[in-house]
Amino acid sequence: MINKLVKRIRETHAPVVVGLDPMLSYIPGKITAEAFREYGETLEGAAEAVFQFNKGIIDAVCDIVPAVKPQIAMYEQFGVPGVNAFKRTVDYSHEKGLIVIGDVKRGDIGSTSEAYAAGHLGKVRIGSSSFAGFDEDFVTVNPYLGSDGVKPFIKICREEKKGLFILVKTSNPSSGEFQDQLIDGKPLYVRVGEKVAEWGQELMGDSYSYIGAVVGATYPEMGKALRRVMPNTFILVPGYGAQGGTGKDLVHFFNDDGLGAIVNSSRGIIAAWKQEKYASFGEEGYAEAARSAAAAMIEDIRSALENKS
Amino acid sequence: MINKLVKRIRETHAPVVVGLDPMLSYIPGKITAEAFREYGETLEGAAEAVFQFNKGIIDAVCDIVPAVKPQIAMYEQFGVPGVNAFKRTVDYSHEKGLIVIGDVKRGDIGSTSEAYAAGHLGKVRIGSSSFAGFDEDFVTVNPYLGSDGVKPFIKICREEKKGLFILVKTSNPSSGEFQDQLIDGKPLYVRVGEKVAEWGQELMGDSYSYIGAVVGATYPEMGKALRRVMPNTFILVPGYGAQGGTGKDLVHFFNDDGLGAIVNSSRGIIAAWKQEKYASFGEEGYAEAARSAAAAMIEDIRSALENKS
Repeated sequence: MINKLVKRIRETHAPVVVGLDPMLSYIPGKITAEAFREYGETLEGAAEAVFQFNKGIIDAVCDIVPAVKPQIAMYEQFGVPGVNAFKRTVDYSHEKGLIVIGDVKRGDIGSTSEAYAAGHLGKVRIGSSSFAGFDEDFVTVNPYLGSDGVKPFIKICREEKKGLFILVKTSNPSSGEFQDQLIDGKPLYVRVGEKVAEWGQELMGDSYSYIGAVVGATYPEMGKALRRVMPNTFILVPGYGAQGGTGKDLVHFFNDDGLGAIVNSSRGIIAAWKQEKYASFGEEGYAEAARSAAAAMIEDIRSALENKS
Repeated sequence: MINKLVKRIRETHAPVVVGLDPMLSYIPGKITAEAFREYGETLEGAAEAVFQFNKGIIDAVCDIVPAVKPQIAMYEQFGVPGVNAFKRTVDYSHEKGLIVIGDVKRGDIGSTSEAYAAGHLGKVRIGSSSFAGFDEDFVTVNPYLGSDGVKPFIKICREEKKGLFILVKTSNPSSGEFQDQLIDGKPLYVRVGEKVAEWGQELMGDSYSYIGAVVGATYPEMGKALRRVMPNTFILVPGYGAQGGTGKDLVHFFNDDGLGAIVNSSRGIIAAWKQEKYASFGEEGYAEAARSAAAAMIEDIRSALENKS
């Protein structure tokens, strides 16, 4: 799957992933009204509105970006119907040829991590058949529990040719509270980065490992340092746009081959129609506004990468 | 909710939680066959078997323990139908008067953590009404992202009078890889423990905080140290039984009031019928075997606590 991601990034010239993290407030009133008319003002109604909203975004961006990243929390808040909307979003994204990074930040130990890995990336055996629960292509994983928590995911990735992005340095202001603490003069995030590189050696694709990392756009200097610690690791970079990162902050997350990183934007794209800059699209044009914002982001990153070399 | 937990532990004299982490191999053939007959050998069939199995366990233990802890990974592996079985398990446990600790180990940042908190502990606003997605009483939380990740959960706990157990020192063999690293001479897990104590001060119940910690039974010396670092923190202790912990290892997780900890056992209780010791119950008696194993565990911990004082 990492080879496919690299190929799709080369084809689209867009190391960009659209974060499908819908809030009800992002959804045009017409979509919500229709969903509520059919299912009532219920969890089912909200979940239907979320899925229809995503469908519009997916249709509008699927030919210019390689991947989407639904954040499962935004679906879990609507309970079981919400989780069903997550699954429908994964399936519809696949139909449209997109790679799906499930932003689930799971992490547990032993058979429990294996169950998460089976559910999100693999298959579960039931009687004489096997079934995929959610079937994303990549998932994000939290490393706090150490190798025991990560290795069951790696095992399933090996079997299914799927991949991970492991949290190394997150984009939020307080990420340093634990991640930046010095251990023998080296911050914890570097330790974790070294481990990710080590785990990644076990499962290499053609040029990059199936085991990637998450490093926030908001910490460009750390991104630069981690790029060197993990040369064969693909980095998923959240924090572009709404959280403050811009194209020029991001060049050092990339290798000289122009690869090695994929940058996420969620709100900045999917809720673009609510920004003054894209207001002319109107509520009805929310998906076209998203496409336009995605194109602008792609251009920002592309030109920053060109000016780097 | 922490006050209710303390009250129920006092009433039952059982600082014990039954982990509802079902694997298909634990489920008696008759239950599986019936579920498959109704729903086929499908995700729906597996999920139905899991729920019916849980129902038997819940009926058998609900008067001797205060709480259950479903591990959501074991449900997510069966996709959306599995997550629905998780929700049914939460609801049925509530019907039977049990406190529910959702072992979800979620953790993200800002609005995303808020969405997890709303979905699992709180309510989500849809139109003019509010709905609870999963409605557990406590959830487990991963602290790797720092205060930004935890505070949205605390906010919802304050509103809903619900609680957290934050991962401090996990029970698995490799938990030390990151958690034991020394920072200025102090292991990371102590740093996290200090933070948990600090966060907990913001939201105190009568004698313990709504904000608890997870510390593995497999590390009794660390449990002793952490008990002092977090005097008002309730500790959820996994790793009893199957993972190797016994009653006498656990006494130092408790305060002198005999409270302050609740010990989890999953496989050792719910799959007791598969142990030689409980084989006489047979497959049909799986729930009674679970009750018997739970009673033995309660007695083991009670007598260890008596011998301590």
